[in-house]
Order: sequence, then C-alpha cells, then structure tokens
Amino acid sequence: MRCGIDIGGTKVLGLAVDADPVEPVAHRLAPTIYEADSLIDTIIKMVSDLENDTCARIEVVGVGIAGIVDRSGTLRYSPNIPGVVDLPIRDILGEVLGRPVMVENDAASATWAEHRCGAGVGSDNVAFVGLGTGIGTGFVLDGVLHRGWHGFSGESGHMIIDKTGPTHITGAGGPWELTASGTGLTHLARRFAAEGRLASVLELAGSVDEIHGRHIQESVDSGATDVVALLEEFARDVGIGLANLIHILDPEIIVIGGGLVDLGRPLLDAIRCHTASFVLGGEHRPAAEIRPARLGSRSAAIGAALLAADLAAT
Amino acid sequence: MRCGIDIGGTKVLGLAVDADPVEPVAHRLAPTIYEADSLIDTIIKMVSDLENDTCARIEVVGVGIAGIVDRSGTLRYSPNIPGVVDLPIRDILGEVLGRPVMVENDAASATWAEHRCGAGVGSDNVAFVGLGTGIGTGFVLDGVLHRGWHGFSGESGHMIIDKTGPTHITGAGGPWELTASGTGLTHLARRFAAEGRLASVLELAGSVDEIHGRHIQESVDSGATDVVALLEEFARDVGIGLANLIHILDPEIIVIGGGLVDLGRPLLDAIRCHTASFVLGGEHRPAAEIRPARLGSRSAAIGAALLAADLAAT
Repeated sequence: MRCGIDIGGTKVLGLAVDADPVEPVAHRLAPTIYEADSLIDTIIKMVSDLENDTCARIEVVGVGIAGIVDRSGTLRYSPNIPGVVDLPIRDILGEVLGRPVMVENDAASATWAEHRCGAGVGSDNVAFVGLGTGIGTGFVLDGVLHRGWHGFSGESGHMIIDKTGPTHITGAGGPWELTASGTGLTHLARRFAAEGRLASVLELAGSVDEIHGRHIQESVDSGATDVVALLEEFARDVGIGLANLIHILDPEIIVIGGGLVDLGRPLLDAIRCHTASFVLGGEHRPAAEIRPARLGSRSAAIGAALLAADLAAT
Repeated sequence: MRCGIDIGGTKVLGLAVDADPVEPVAHRLAPTIYEADSLIDTIIKMVSDLENDTCARIEVVGVGIAGIVDRSGTLRYSPNIPGVVDLPIRDILGEVLGRPVMVENDAASATWAEHRCGAGVGSDNVAFVGLGTGIGTGFVLDGVLHRGWHGFSGESGHMIIDKTGPTHITGAGGPWELTASGTGLTHLARRFAAEGRLASVLELAGSVDEIHGRHIQESVDSGATDVVALLEEFARDVGIGLANLIHILDPEIIVIGGGLVDLGRPLLDAIRCHTASFVLGGEHRPAAEIRPARLGSRSAAIGAALLAADLAAT
C-alpha cells in the first residue's frame, strides 16, 4: 500500500492506493493550515488514518504540494500557503515516518498521473495545464517528468502574456493565471454581468459581486447562450498561453485539468480554436491535441502515490 | 571530416570541422536563395567546395536552418526563407550526397554547440536564447537536446508577452521577438532618437530612419551614456521572456547569443537585473545564471556538425 497526499491552498486530500491507482481504497480530507508544524502534523495524522482505514501498512508516502519544491523535497515558497517557506518536508516526514517519502509540486504530480493513467496515456510528450484558482502546469518530455534544474519547472501560470496589463497579487504585471484561471473567469463574468451581457449568470447569483464559479457552471449546464460569449472571450487568454507552450515545447497532447474542465465542451472547443489561431505556421504543422483531464481533483494525489512508488522501486 | 551548414535568412555559412569543433579547418559563405532547388544546389556546392578546400572527404553533413524542421528533416515552414515550404531537405541531400545528413533548426544547433563546447559546458540544463533579427531559442534538458514531439520546440520568439500589443509580420499580437530582438532594438532606438533621447546614436546615423544596429553598437563602444537608458528599456522585454522561460523550464544556465551579445556587459547586466525582477519568489530560489554565448555567429554551423557526427556515431 502507498499513499498520495495533495496539499492545496485550502484542503489536504490523502488517498491510499493499492494495485489500481485510479481506484483508491481509502481517502481522507483535512483543511490546509498555514503553519509549518501543523501542516506536518496534518500529513502524519493522515498517513496514520489511512493505515487505520485500510488495515494495511503504507510503505511509501508521496506528497504533492502547491508551491515550488526543490529536488531535495523542500518547499521553498508557495503563494497558496503563506507563512510556510523553506520547509524540508521530505526530510522531516522521512525521519518521523521512517519510510520513503517523495515530495513534488502538485501540478507535476497531476501531470504524471494523467500521463500514466489518465488523458495522456500513450504519449511521451504531454503538457498538463490545470485551470483552477491559479494555473498549474507540468510536462512529460520524452517520457520523463520534467523537473528543471532546481525542481521548479512548470510555473507557467506566472508567464507574462500581457506586459502592460494589471498587476497580480504576486506583483507581476499580466501573468497568464491572472486572466486565464478560474479566478480570472469569475472576474471576467462579473465584468460581463456589470455590462449587462450575462443575464443568465447574474440571475443565478443575485448580484454582480456574488457571482462565483458555480453560477457560471450552472449557466453552462442549463444551456444558456449568453455564457457562451463569456467562455469565448475567456478562452482567448487560455489559448495565448497554450500557444506559448506549444511554441516553446511542442507537446503532442495538452491535458486540460483543474476545476474549469467541468465546464466541458463549450470551453474546450473555444480553447482549441483560439490556441490554433495563435500558433505560427499552423497550416504547416500538426496541431497539439487538447484533451480534458480524466482524473479530476484526485490527479495530484494519485500522481504523488505513483511517483512515491517509482521512488521506492529504484 | 564533417561539415556544418547554417542556413539563415540572408546567408549560408558552411564549416568543415575536424577534431576540434571550435576551430573549423575551412569555411564558406553564400547568399540564401528563397527557392527550393537553388537552396539545395547551394548546399551541395558548399559541401563540394569544403572538400576541395580541405582536400578531404566529408563523411557526414549537418544542416541548421532558420525555420521549423520536423523529425524527418523536412523544413516545414520558415518565416525567414519565404517560398520554401515542406521541403524534405534531409532526404534530398541524403540521396544526392550519398552520406548521412542531419537537419535541425538553427537555434537548436546553436544550443547544442554552446552546450558541448561553449558557454553551457558543464551544465545539463541550458536554455540558449539567440537575440538576432528575431529570437531563436533551444533547450538542453537533463543533457538531451529537446526537440518536441514534432521537432518544433524552441520557437519561443513567437511567445506572446503583450497580448494587446502591436502585430508582428507573423500576424500575432505582441510576440517576444517583436520588441526583444535586434529588430526590436532598432525600432526602439529610432523612437528614442525621435524623442530627442538618443543624441549619440542619432549623430552617428545622420537621421532617425537611418539608425541601424551598428550605430547602437558604436555608441555603446564609445561609452556614450544616453544609450544606456535605451539598453535598460530594451532589456526589460528581454527579461520578461527569460523569466517566462525560467518559470516554465527552470534552466541552470541561460546562454545569450545572437548579434546583440556583442553589445556586452551594459546589455547583459540590464537583462540580468530585469529577469530577476520578473521571477516569482526570487528570494526563495537560486537564480538561473545568464551568460554570453562563446561561439558567436558560428554556433549553429558548429552545432550542426556536432549533431551530424552524433548521428553518424549511432
């Protein structure tokens, strides 16, 4: 038995995984605490709880975490988990738990999961792009999970696509995730609603300031037409970033994950169309295939479990 | 003996290389002709000329070419060599010359050269960024030249950094190379001069419209102070793109090549400073080292010869 633990900005998900990684045998949820000792305690308790749930010993522990993680398994910095910096998670957990521990960025973990048992199966050149609160990305290049020299690759959400644009909470002007994430979609929806262009969503939310992602989802699910124009404009910025990744890395498959993938075909089709329009010489090159993720919100935890098992096998 | 041939937008450089790749034993130059048959003829004649020059048989031929080259050695499309599309250079040359031929993008070839015997020696994670007429890039990741699924990676010059910005000749709005290339620097210098902020360069050129790269170079060499402000503003856009590549790929070393590297320290220091300012969480991560290229304008030809030799050895 191995376990994969996904530490996000709001919650911690733990999965106990046996033979089939996409069918975990137990799962646990806990809130993310923005303080180092408490965060470590949460993980240790979760491993213990998963062992109790499964009546089995967990041999290896994989952790996927939202932030930049170096190759020694130290969380260097996370915009999503303020107050926890330079924390040597792998070493601390390894000492306390007395078994192999793997710590990786959450998007990298999700990338590996989608490559091994999700929408990227069969391709050795996969870009994963998780559209959630921010944008997390990861790359499998020639069959290998790319980590970068320090372990910090895949922070594509901070790629600047609008150098004169508004400033993000990170201090950078016009990064991709400012407009092309779930947060960006909500802001765009509020603007559309304030301009009288999004009646269906405004009716569901009650007021402009109360518009959240779930209202956009409901509007899409109900088949409203005004929300299509919203997704169309939103998808343009997603497409700019994807075309940038295509120019830089030339992947075979781009897997779109994160919460926004639940918006389904209307969003994906618009993303495909805009992305193609931004790729130079598109008529002379095969297109990267853009697919929805298959593993949903469990992908980072599943990937962490898979990477931990790989680590234990070496 | 092997040869490396670099086909650029204006000229073709051929080098005959023996034991030491950075000291070619012969070289040839020819103009680039924008027509398929003539371009092939140019290459064939160059191989023959280099054999005559060296009184030796060239066993393998490497070609680096400005454009997107697929894994079968076909030039699919080149913005720099209009009129030549979908040309199976490797197959045609292989048949005519009767020896192994390697065809690769010119920036990828230059990347390999700088990694093997230039500024990137000793690191397995190198990004090469050639600042010339446009911007060409290439990546060595974990010791391997990254080609991408189709062979089209490294087209980072087309990465959009200013989505609301002016449109490039490629049709895209605000790509990196529009402002951060040699062409971009010349345009910026003309604007500075028109605004009365670049007297040193204006005096050398005679008029705003006559300002070219060589005048900027002369002004820098003469130690003029007004040109420093120009380089400072220019370096900002270079830094945006480099920070994007750092966020995406996390290289250990970034090698700056292309003609602009001759501007020396004033430009490089400004690039280093701006790049650092755009990297998120810079205080929690080691910086990628930004170095000037060592192989100059011969890097693509040297790299093509090295890659051809690698091909012949496998």
